[in-house]
Amino acid sequence: MSDTASNDTRQLPALTGRVVISVDAMGGDAGPAAVVAGIAQSASKNPDIAFILHGPAAELRPLVEKRRLASRVVIRDAVGVVKMDDKPSHVMRHGKDTSMWSTIQAVEKGEAAVAVSCGNTGALMAVSMLRLRKIEGVNRPAIACLWPSRNPQGFNIMLDVGADIRADQQDLLQYALMGMSYARNGMGLSRPRVGLLNVGTEEHKGRAELKVAHDLIEAAAAKNDFDFVGFVEGGDIPSDRVDVIVTDGFTGNIALKTGEGTAKLIGQFLREAFKHTPLSRLAALLALTSLKRLNKRIDPRRVNGGVFLGLNGTVVKSHGGADATGVSAAIKLAFQLAQSRFSERLAARLASVGHAGQDAPHND
Amino acid sequence: MSDTASNDTRQLPALTGRVVISVDAMGGDAGPAAVVAGIAQSASKNPDIAFILHGPAAELRPLVEKRRLASRVVIRDAVGVVKMDDKPSHVMRHGKDTSMWSTIQAVEKGEAAVAVSCGNTGALMAVSMLRLRKIEGVNRPAIACLWPSRNPQGFNIMLDVGADIRADQQDLLQYALMGMSYARNGMGLSRPRVGLLNVGTEEHKGRAELKVAHDLIEAAAAKNDFDFVGFVEGGDIPSDRVDVIVTDGFTGNIALKTGEGTAKLIGQFLREAFKHTPLSRLAALLALTSLKRLNKRIDPRRVNGGVFLGLNGTVVKSHGGADATGVSAAIKLAFQLAQSRFSERLAARLASVGHAGQDAPHND
Repeated sequence: MSDTASNDTRQLPALTGRVVISVDAMGGDAGPAAVVAGIAQSASKNPDIAFILHGPAAELRPLVEKRRLASRVVIRDAVGVVKMDDKPSHVMRHGKDTSMWSTIQAVEKGEAAVAVSCGNTGALMAVSMLRLRKIEGVNRPAIACLWPSRNPQGFNIMLDVGADIRADQQDLLQYALMGMSYARNGMGLSRPRVGLLNVGTEEHKGRAELKVAHDLIEAAAAKNDFDFVGFVEGGDIPSDRVDVIVTDGFTGNIALKTGEGTAKLIGQFLREAFKHTPLSRLAALLALTSLKRLNKRIDPRRVNGGVFLGLNGTVVKSHGGADATGVSAAIKLAFQLAQSRFSERLAARLASVGHAGQDAPHND
Repeated sequence: MSDTASNDTRQLPALTGRVVISVDAMGGDAGPAAVVAGIAQSASKNPDIAFILHGPAAELRPLVEKRRLASRVVIRDAVGVVKMDDKPSHVMRHGKDTSMWSTIQAVEKGEAAVAVSCGNTGALMAVSMLRLRKIEGVNRPAIACLWPSRNPQGFNIMLDVGADIRADQQDLLQYALMGMSYARNGMGLSRPRVGLLNVGTEEHKGRAELKVAHDLIEAAAAKNDFDFVGFVEGGDIPSDRVDVIVTDGFTGNIALKTGEGTAKLIGQFLREAFKHTPLSRLAALLALTSLKRLNKRIDPRRVNGGVFLGLNGTVVKSHGGADATGVSAAIKLAFQLAQSRFSERLAARLASVGHAGQDAPHND
């Protein structure tokens, strides 16, 4: 990484007194222009936010100046770019000059509260684990996603959606605690309802580790001020029965992609249905406001941001195909988590669970 | 099971020269009236189909007479009913008097070509395995479902969606062959494209048994006249990249329920969007035909029928909440599979794979 800007960015006027978000300008499908446009959206809505932006300075400076963001953004020069098909192991060994590495390092050094990147998920997790390290007592970090739901908050949280393809009963218990803490700090739910994803809801069904995890999470619920609703099924993920859905990263990733694929298919079918005849095209015009209202509720850009949980620092993974609206949504989530001091609270919560009998009330 | 009708139903005029489907009248949420209404729909559309209907004769006879189906339906009296929350092990031990048991037995005895039931899935699989037994060489039977897709045939096949929560590499290979055979016989695809469900499409991702299964299925593809497209992700399940999606029953069941849940949520949001203002209600009226056109493409009743694969006999599991249209769709699928002599062809296909080097072309 080659810095052209000062390393002590906390002294820069742009960042003073504001919540600083470290943003990777590179690695997304839409390129740095979309990322800077997203930053501009967030900056205009929220005066309390500032950015360290990582990528090739020569490319970023004109974009930042064009959006008149110089007073809110510090550019950190990093010439390397992690590509979508780069292997995580390769990036860990050879990625020190990349914008992704630099983005995570700003959180590691305490210069920024939260990191945001649209890049390669596997590489981002690998670099995050290497630089930020796991919270003491956490075996496997997890990626939590937001899912449109019938709940008043509009979204449910599901984890893990792909940090690791395995999870044993202890991992699932930690996911429950991390997801509960995220729901409290990111969504303001004082008593989140947690469910464990399984096939069938009868307790005699499902894998052995799920039955053990069921009892572990049930026992942890009372001590940690959340409700455990027991096993839930795939159909419950967007329901109002539950706020946090716990599963292993293999199953969670399949469920996430399946839900996205189904929503996309229905959207395409809906557009085709409205193009079928001249009358249906007229109906579509009249129905436009209603369809936009629908779209707003299920727009994946509004729920843009998988959060890496279980590390010493918060990382928000934005969708690789995110546009300005998507990037801005990820930044908003990062800001909320930074403001609630989520990372410190999560670490305290997990530490307290590690010691039996220690049950001091943590306000996480 | 107490029979009041003759046991040698093949001699009855109603069944002579027709494809006979064995139908469980009981166990669905909508009761036997919906099942008989579904039979009536199928009977009026298809003169080549006849039924053995299982359940309490005193309750079924008036329903059959009311629909004027006496010339197409033979009633087989069975007083017991399997409830949705009955444990499969209980039904296996104590279920001999039930309509479900009688329905499967008619296939076992060769009286009917295919069985259809709306009842308890676990119990239906348990009774089917007990009476029909697994095809020689099959370790785990599977349940295959149809999924609305962008393919010309309108649906993709996914298996296993819940017969068993485990599947090793050999099971996944058998699922690939069973699914391919189902696509050929049930959908008329001469060269089905098979994909293996995984997270990420790069070959270095995913569980160890999936990598082995990948190579096994790849090797089997050339010999068995199907295309293997390799790993697919959740988002590909409704796509036109693939016709058959292979996965274990845990993951498949979660994906199926997640897809159904997502479609249901979007449907509810769509209705709410159109009820929001007087103008949107007017727009909804004009858009009605378009919305019906959409609904027809994603209507779960049209894809009603999970098929049990790997047994000596074909069993179609209709949705527990199926109405007459849903039951009729399940019967139509049963008829197609009966006509193509699917069960015999599948057994021959699996037997040929069991012997290395034996590569006679089977037209299944």
